[in-house]
Amino acid sequence: MRSIALLTDFGLQDGYVGIMKGAIATISATIPCIDITHDIPPQDLWAGRFCLMNSAPYFPKRTIFLGVVDPGVGSNRRSIAIQFAEGFFVGPDNGLASGLLDIFQAIAAVELNNSKYWRTEQNVSQTFHGRDIFAPVAAHLATGVSLNNMGTNVAIDALTKLKLEPYTRNHNQITGTIQYVDHFGNLITNIPNHCANDLSEVVRLGDRLIPKVTTYSNVLPNHICLLQGSHGWLEISANQNNAQQQLSLTVGTTLTLISQ
Amino acid sequence: MRSIALLTDFGLQDGYVGIMKGAIATISATIPCIDITHDIPPQDLWAGRFCLMNSAPYFPKRTIFLGVVDPGVGSNRRSIAIQFAEGFFVGPDNGLASGLLDIFQAIAAVELNNSKYWRTEQNVSQTFHGRDIFAPVAAHLATGVSLNNMGTNVAIDALTKLKLEPYTRNHNQITGTIQYVDHFGNLITNIPNHCANDLSEVVRLGDRLIPKVTTYSNVLPNHICLLQGSHGWLEISANQNNAQQQLSLTVGTTLTLISQ
Amino acid sequence: MRSIALLTDFGLQDGYVGIMKGAIATISATIPCIDITHDIPPQDLWAGRFCLMNSAPYFPKRTIFLGVVDPGVGSNRRSIAIQFAEGFFVGPDNGLASGLLDIFQAIAAVELNNSKYWRTEQNVSQTFHGRDIFAPVAAHLATGVSLNNMGTNVAIDALTKLKLEPYTRNHNQITGTIQYVDHFGNLITNIPNHCANDLSEVVRLGDRLIPKVTTYSNVLPNHICLLQGSHGWLEISANQNNAQQQLSLTVGTTLTLISQ
Repeated sequence: MRSIALLTDFGLQDGYVGIMKGAIATISATIPCIDITHDIPPQDLWAGRFCLMNSAPYFPKRTIFLGVVDPGVGSNRRSIAIQFAEGFFVGPDNGLASGLLDIFQAIAAVELNNSKYWRTEQNVSQTFHGRDIFAPVAAHLATGVSLNNMGTNVAIDALTKLKLEPYTRNHNQITGTIQYVDHFGNLITNIPNHCANDLSEVVRLGDRLIPKVTTYSNVLPNHICLLQGSHGWLEISANQNNAQQQLSLTVGTTLTLISQ
Repeated sequence: MRSIALLTDFGLQDGYVGIMKGAIATISATIPCIDITHDIPPQDLWAGRFCLMNSAPYFPKRTIFLGVVDPGVGSNRRSIAIQFAEGFFVGPDNGLASGLLDIFQAIAAVELNNSKYWRTEQNVSQTFHGRDIFAPVAAHLATGVSLNNMGTNVAIDALTKLKLEPYTRNHNQITGTIQYVDHFGNLITNIPNHCANDLSEVVRLGDRLIPKVTTYSNVLPNHICLLQGSHGWLEISANQNNAQQQLSLTVGTTLTLISQ
Repeated sequence: MRSIALLTDFGLQDGYVGIMKGAIATISATIPCIDITHDIPPQDLWAGRFCLMNSAPYFPKRTIFLGVVDPGVGSNRRSIAIQFAEGFFVGPDNGLASGLLDIFQAIAAVELNNSKYWRTEQNVSQTFHGRDIFAPVAAHLATGVSLNNMGTNVAIDALTKLKLEPYTRNHNQITGTIQYVDHFGNLITNIPNHCANDLSEVVRLGDRLIPKVTTYSNVLPNHICLLQGSHGWLEISANQNNAQQQLSLTVGTTLTLISQ
């Protein structure tokens, strides 16, 4: 039995996530469900994209990633499932799967228009496709139903993708973008860890000089540092403190690291 | 093995939910546990009633609903288990199960006074029946022990129920009550979805005119709309925004929708 | 298959917990994972120590307690696993396991320096040992691998412990420390429940007289009371209210209860 890994912006307060798991268990009570997170900021596709991309490589092969961050639910945005060499994605075609498309090898995609695999063939909610379409489709995939039963083929190139400006190098400086801020306030850029090798031991960021270190505790408490993050990208962090609050930077901010 | 679906106001911070699951796993480590929510506002029986009623229909038949919102723990309120045609409820007899009693078919109920099925026969905590009584009883039900072993029969009519004023129709208007506000700020009334058919395309709510739509994105971002909710009741929502904050309405508020 | 019980300060927002469970499922998809809590205040070893100690006795024998509150990750603090008569601990050697060492019977401990049982033998993150070392080691223990395969033996006495001043009695008074404040604002002392027998029915705390009761509802709503907590220690609580906010006391505060 394949596992289902869930990521939504539903929060845990209202029971929506429990309802999706109930819909899964109704199809098969033995499918393992693992929560990635349900605290994506409401309708924040960028945060959803990042968390999904960042988590997926650590799950077993053939895991089904059930992602629901869905500001366009009920509109004409497509419902899709994607088969990768490494697993599956089920959710809206709105860019949420962009990160998976970047790091995994896509094999096929379908629009979910075969209502046989939905919770009910009639009376599908216009506002809760997670319960009525995505969870049941994910459960059927987990039990081994083939992707091409779920709907009509869609070209991989035709899937919606979010666009992130790539990082650039220029002589002694590297410019990138903050693509995520985590729970601890660590600022995660889109500059790969290996770029750290090209930077000096202390770099300039705006009017600050910050040391390049291997772990938080290499600087004094509250001090800002640059390190190779566990996600694979350079992070700006504060030892035992919140770098976002200290620096007042946020997702989407462009920043330039200058070797000294 | 039957599943246990859990709903409490314990929050996830202190480990109380984990302790209940530990108590369940001690009886049988293979019982599937599914969280509905643990973020019911402390001691808010109305929110607990709603979330339980709203979630339960999407779970497999014979699921055991373990509900603990329990301001009277340790007082003389009864501990109960109810058997429905569709599943079971285990928890306090304080109205938390009211919604299940409305939508499910009750078959039998018992007061949980057979300490053989508790965690320990002595030294039961006066403040944490979730751990010492409800979780173990739910686990024994999940493994197939019969309800009537758990305690003394209680008449269904004698169970505590919360009372919600029914909605009313009057010529061109429908009056109902907000019975729940979800995480997104959607205001969920107690007016069934089918009543939408009797309302005009735009309805008056106080001094506002709001359109009746089929999904959020039928109105501009931030605009208020009336739609048929995924819960089965009419909802007042704001596209990509928080209707509760915009309208300053809350649970228990009576509202009247007037056709134009 | 042994269960894994998880406690961290990762929060549920970023997907770090999901990643650890993915790493566990990659080793064996059938290991039951139970969350104790992931909302330990960031880097608060005292809260982590308490929640772990308080929860562990309610889990099945041989459960693996995977605890990650780890301000020193990447420094020279040791990674350890401890085998108790009652189960296992896997995590940093920084005092997080102090409470387990107090209540369980330690049999052996190892430093986790055999990279064969890590997620990868190379490129271990300096900031996320939860994913790369602790989760895989816990999963291998769950599948039955022996502790002594995981690394080099460490003397139990050499493990790091947090020190809590013991409570004292003096004639008609008992002095203790608040060791935890829960989600409801209940103040949990380090004075064992049995001491309640030696106190008068009303005790003085500062300039207040508070009744000793058996459950919250023995006092009027909002009133402060002293009761025998479900954790095994005397608690100061407010019926249907938040005692911490009313009394402005917090973790580490010393308090004296005086019989009248």
